[in-house]
Amino acid sequence: MKNILKNIPGNLPEELFQTLVKNAGVHIERIVSRGHASPAGEWYDQDRNEFVLVLKGAGHIEFGNGRTESLEAGDWLEIPARVKHRVAWTAPDSDTIWLAVHYS
Amino acid sequence: MKNILKNIPGNLPEELFQTLVKNAGVHIERIVSRGHASPAGEWYDQDRNEFVLVLKGAGHIEFGNGRTESLEAGDWLEIPARVKHRVAWTAPDSDTIWLAVHYS
Repeated sequence: MKNILKNIPGNLPEELFQTLVKNAGVHIERIVSRGHASPAGEWYDQDRNEFVLVLKGAGHIEFGNGRTESLEAGDWLEIPARVKHRVAWTAPDSDTIWLAVHYS
Repeated sequence: MKNILKNIPGNLPEELFQTLVKNAGVHIERIVSRGHASPAGEWYDQDRNEFVLVLKGAGHIEFGNGRTESLEAGDWLEIPARVKHRVAWTAPDSDTIWLAVHYS
């Protein structure tokens, strides 16, 4: 994949996770959502920090402490390791494309 | 900076480098170019790998082996450590916004 905004499948029954770069220290991936959200009550609780950036579309990230962040194209967040979070909402009628960088 | 596409200075005499995340393992930065290029004959020769993504605009990356890559919005490249490269050109009439991730 040379362009992170292109080659989106027409059919997207589940969120799409695609690795761009992966080595011992870093994992960079593209995530494509189309109205998907994390199942109710299901949280990411990760060993590594995450930098997440919305490239297109919009999404809401909910945190274990009750805070929710609304993100649109260009917005980014740093999510420290062990901070519980979930995708509460993504735009239902268009693709939301995320870049995620996981690092220690 | 919450949004990587906003808050661009009106006056940009030199390329703008802004750190978003930095720790021992990773350095994530925003770079804004407006017609800027690396000085002729000057090369980046970095200790760490770099993932670079064009968020807006367009640029050309030239490599020490003579290859040049043209990048537009959404295009990304992985530049391994010690691979000499320079920014040969960026769009003169608009801002080019890059996301760079440096990692070991």
